[in-house]
Amino acid sequence: MAQKTVLIVYAHQSGGSFNSAAKNIAVEAFTLQGYKVIVSDLYAMNFKATATMEDIAGDVKKPEEFKYGDETMHAWMDGRLSDDIIAEQRKLEEAELVIFQFPMYWFSVPAILKGWIDRVLTQGFAFSLQNMYDNGKFKDKKAMLSFSTGAMEKMFLPDGLHGDMNVTLWPLQNGVLHFCGFQVLAPQVFYCPAHCPLEVRTASLEGWRTRLVTLLDEQPLTFASCGMFDLSFSGGFKLRPEVWEEQSACPHGLSTGHHLGKPLPPNNQLKAGDSKGDAV
Amino acid sequence: MAQKTVLIVYAHQSGGSFNSAAKNIAVEAFTLQGYKVIVSDLYAMNFKATATMEDIAGDVKKPEEFKYGDETMHAWMDGRLSDDIIAEQRKLEEAELVIFQFPMYWFSVPAILKGWIDRVLTQGFAFSLQNMYDNGKFKDKKAMLSFSTGAMEKMFLPDGLHGDMNVTLWPLQNGVLHFCGFQVLAPQVFYCPAHCPLEVRTASLEGWRTRLVTLLDEQPLTFASCGMFDLSFSGGFKLRPEVWEEQSACPHGLSTGHHLGKPLPPNNQLKAGDSKGDAV
Repeated sequence: MAQKTVLIVYAHQSGGSFNSAAKNIAVEAFTLQGYKVIVSDLYAMNFKATATMEDIAGDVKKPEEFKYGDETMHAWMDGRLSDDIIAEQRKLEEAELVIFQFPMYWFSVPAILKGWIDRVLTQGFAFSLQNMYDNGKFKDKKAMLSFSTGAMEKMFLPDGLHGDMNVTLWPLQNGVLHFCGFQVLAPQVFYCPAHCPLEVRTASLEGWRTRLVTLLDEQPLTFASCGMFDLSFSGGFKLRPEVWEEQSACPHGLSTGHHLGKPLPPNNQLKAGDSKGDAV
Repeated sequence: MAQKTVLIVYAHQSGGSFNSAAKNIAVEAFTLQGYKVIVSDLYAMNFKATATMEDIAGDVKKPEEFKYGDETMHAWMDGRLSDDIIAEQRKLEEAELVIFQFPMYWFSVPAILKGWIDRVLTQGFAFSLQNMYDNGKFKDKKAMLSFSTGAMEKMFLPDGLHGDMNVTLWPLQNGVLHFCGFQVLAPQVFYCPAHCPLEVRTASLEGWRTRLVTLLDEQPLTFASCGMFDLSFSGGFKLRPEVWEEQSACPHGLSTGHHLGKPLPPNNQLKAGDSKGDAV
């Protein structure tokens, strides 16, 4: 059997950083488990963040009417994407698990990592109109966010100053990872390491090391499935009426459920945004 | 009285695009109203998206321990930020209104625009521990998102395939704009122009032109105010207990309210994520 592969997409400028330590622990843990570990160290690679015509080899016919999404999709079909994009796509194809390791910037990923998302997850390669969410291209792969914050955990509770972390992560966890079909593992959130005492930082990194031993046995977060929606123009890509009816008997129905990342009762399978990782 | 200024931070690669047309309409509309209009055309400027040590003039003392947030804050205090960042900060200082015009990429802004957010909104300049949300640095300014989507409006309803647009926009509207103190105007959402007939595209752009005539008279979206939170370490930056009690009598309390962008009853002042702009 071929060796299994983990890809770590890592975005921090400095080798002495907390995020670097978290990345190194993951490299060690998966190497110990016999995995091949690939790290895309975006700053060290000087990874190009911006989506431009240069992402396609050869001339663009009408630069004034350039549409990035459409034209990169065609370039992918024709094998004309730039070498740096193709290299990342190869790593992604090979990986069973992708870990995104970064410091949260402005309630999202740093721009260099957003650039990886914008440029590498080309239509056709990463999704299509037929392949999205639980029918997604990467449904046999797992992915997760692992990140540090500048703010404390309390601030990211539903009644905290910044609001619920699950809502903050919705565009990334649902809109990027789940959209591409990934089984999304609970996020590893390192709250405010810069202002924690050394022993707390060390303990949180050791907690990460411990989690990594059984990470791939974890149940992924649950999101609504495509089967719940009427995926036709006439149906308007909205929830099927019968799903509404089924869910209306639940204490927390779909309207406040999967699409808002609210914790749901334990027996409800629609527990998007399970906050397991928040307590780490 | 000095001439008033509008800043448009614009992120599209092509002059023939729908987003370019939307940007041009805003330039025309505000010029007609007597405003000075500044456009930061990020792709044309080849705007640097990634947050690196080069953003600070002179040598960084310990590159291995470089912390972007802290060190750019000190560089801002000492006047040592790079010229391109300073130029954008000057434009922002001058502007009464900032419009971000972009195609939505992966349920957020394109990386080049995320880079503008990451690099220009330096701590000290754009926020501080004493100045955030409704006490924010830019509380006398207005800002808004204006963007195109690849998906249809129905898909962004609470029961739509992609979930509620208000939730999708929460990290940007609350976490970036409101966090810096901006009065956030309702977003201008152009749903799926690439797949609309020409007359629909034209009508939506004319709707934008009409909206711009009275844009600055609009009521901004309402978010929870800092006064509702106990902003002390002992209070944990959480909602004050009396606010919980006051709100518990409302049909939609704070827990499902402001931090989830759910529409609230008309008399409830906490109607974050008013979806006015969604219908455009």
